[in-house]
Amino acid sequence: MNEEALRDERTSARNGMAPPTVLVTGGAGYIGSHTVLEMLNAGYNVICVDNLCNAYSSGAAKLPEALSRVQDITGKKVHFYRVDITDREQVRSVFQEHKIDMVAHFAALKAVGESCRIPLQYYHNNMTGTNVLLEAMADNNVFKFVYSSSATVYGEPKFLPVTEEHPTGNCTSPYGKTKYFTEEILKDLCKSDKRWAVVSLRYFNPVGAHISGRIGEDPNGEPNNLMPYIAQVAVGRRPSLSVYGSDFPTKDGTGVRDYIHIVDLAEGHVKALDKLRNIAETGFFAYNLGTGVGYSVLDMVKAFEKASGKKVTYALVDRRSGDVATCYADAKLAEQKLGWKATRGIDKMCEDTWRWQSQNPNGYANK
Amino acid sequence: MNEEALRDERTSARNGMAPPTVLVTGGAGYIGSHTVLEMLNAGYNVICVDNLCNAYSSGAAKLPEALSRVQDITGKKVHFYRVDITDREQVRSVFQEHKIDMVAHFAALKAVGESCRIPLQYYHNNMTGTNVLLEAMADNNVFKFVYSSSATVYGEPKFLPVTEEHPTGNCTSPYGKTKYFTEEILKDLCKSDKRWAVVSLRYFNPVGAHISGRIGEDPNGEPNNLMPYIAQVAVGRRPSLSVYGSDFPTKDGTGVRDYIHIVDLAEGHVKALDKLRNIAETGFFAYNLGTGVGYSVLDMVKAFEKASGKKVTYALVDRRSGDVATCYADAKLAEQKLGWKATRGIDKMCEDTWRWQSQNPNGYANK
Repeated sequence: MNEEALRDERTSARNGMAPPTVLVTGGAGYIGSHTVLEMLNAGYNVICVDNLCNAYSSGAAKLPEALSRVQDITGKKVHFYRVDITDREQVRSVFQEHKIDMVAHFAALKAVGESCRIPLQYYHNNMTGTNVLLEAMADNNVFKFVYSSSATVYGEPKFLPVTEEHPTGNCTSPYGKTKYFTEEILKDLCKSDKRWAVVSLRYFNPVGAHISGRIGEDPNGEPNNLMPYIAQVAVGRRPSLSVYGSDFPTKDGTGVRDYIHIVDLAEGHVKALDKLRNIAETGFFAYNLGTGVGYSVLDMVKAFEKASGKKVTYALVDRRSGDVATCYADAKLAEQKLGWKATRGIDKMCEDTWRWQSQNPNGYANK
Repeated sequence: MNEEALRDERTSARNGMAPPTVLVTGGAGYIGSHTVLEMLNAGYNVICVDNLCNAYSSGAAKLPEALSRVQDITGKKVHFYRVDITDREQVRSVFQEHKIDMVAHFAALKAVGESCRIPLQYYHNNMTGTNVLLEAMADNNVFKFVYSSSATVYGEPKFLPVTEEHPTGNCTSPYGKTKYFTEEILKDLCKSDKRWAVVSLRYFNPVGAHISGRIGEDPNGEPNNLMPYIAQVAVGRRPSLSVYGSDFPTKDGTGVRDYIHIVDLAEGHVKALDKLRNIAETGFFAYNLGTGVGYSVLDMVKAFEKASGKKVTYALVDRRSGDVATCYADAKLAEQKLGWKATRGIDKMCEDTWRWQSQNPNGYANK
């Protein structure tokens, strides 16, 4: 389906025909909420489920705060259910309540270090949860699925930039294994039944926030990822950033990653959903979502200082086990096949993160 | 713990001290039932659970037929519950009812071809099921686990004989992946919590039956494995054996495998349980259970004809995708570490299979 046809379809939807309905799991989280926003803007009808284990919701609110703000920003309604995807009955009830056309699956535990401490919970949430969801889909004749995968499926890169042809597996953490194992299950599923159409999006390092500054990344406790940590240091919530490893074989000795703006990432999901609406193509497809450019930790610190006008104090400390020196994507396949390309650079990533962080120094809890 | 101390402990158990109690999942199946028999003979107290999806039970019988016969043979009692291990509440209730010391986990779907057709059911049964079981164990402070793994975790052998150091992964079927993924989960679990002691037994090709001829392999429908197929042809239940592939680079062109007598295999499990009783050693340990000797399909056919005095009609047909030419174990590690070695050769495998098959031409249904 070309751009024009899609626009026509969305217009028809606005004129009374039902727009496609997407079930979004983990829709209240960082990536989920930004993607829901872009989906609503693109004319999709969105049903969200989330167990809120990683999302803020005031006791009184019916909607998690992030989704309430998404409604404010878009002027459109989100249907929300507090559902744990590992609970078969809860998941089935959502499929009974709504005619779902596609599923975008973000719900997962995501902290590498934590996954090494409590692996069974990771396998339960990420694998059993996905299995329950896929079974409910098949039972309800829904076969279009966008999966929240990760560059972690590639393990330690054997060549750079990392293409989708790079071997997967050899993941070191339980978190990484849940992403790799789930991709294998999805491949098996597509082989077993030609009705399935699965797009697995392999994220590199999502950062940034919506331009409004009203939604952004709001980790529970100490951030695991670089950007929210930098932002919390800049805003005064934490005294100093620990930079893990300064003796990597990179230009300044710190690790190099492919950071991608969360709104670019969200737009990639909309493109994937657009592709899945074309029923002719089924099977398993994996695409990297990255910019193709690597920045070091110190690059990010400097860019953030420039964007925020704040000093980001940091200390160089030992490497963490399992961290690789350099990783960045070859993002050409997504451009060719989905018509998607990241357009927001490092300065925009830092500006938008800072807008969110400075307007919401304590995240969503501080309305 | 040495042999003498173990004997002492078993004697104490007989003199009034409680013997160790082992929960056996899938205990009514082929490997499960033979292992339960050897465990009872070795003095273990056995609690069995099975959902009976692959085991015969007459409507009236409280016990599945295989376990009823195990009780007859050993003169000892088996506690049985019809429990599906994917059902958290059912599994928990067994742990509440009994003080479990160790778990031997056989319950799994096991047909390679079927797993390609219905992968989600394989992932559900084999992976979610194992996860539920491990969580129930941890909640009840049970950390000793014997896992029913398979040589399939090695994928296509890169060298022969296959040692435990051979890389794992690259499994082609969903069945094989469930075994490989579960081993990875068990490794992660052992790394995360030093109380876990896991022995993963990688079976080569179990065949044969108990010497009594009263228990044996009783597949539902058309057998997936060679030996029950040969036996059913010999006994007249099926007209002819299809031999998949006669152009492999082997001595007679047919595939070569490491067949192991089911009673040797069962004894390997008892040795593993004996090892786990030594609480000092925790962590993840994998051992091959094989003989170290490979026989071709035609070797097996000939040996079976000799043992049974029956003609086994066969037809050479095309290879099945995914079948390798030759696979056999290096079984030295189990000998060194468990004090276990297979002692029953190809003639014994065929004689015992024939005794079972000729006395029970239609399996358990034909008492």
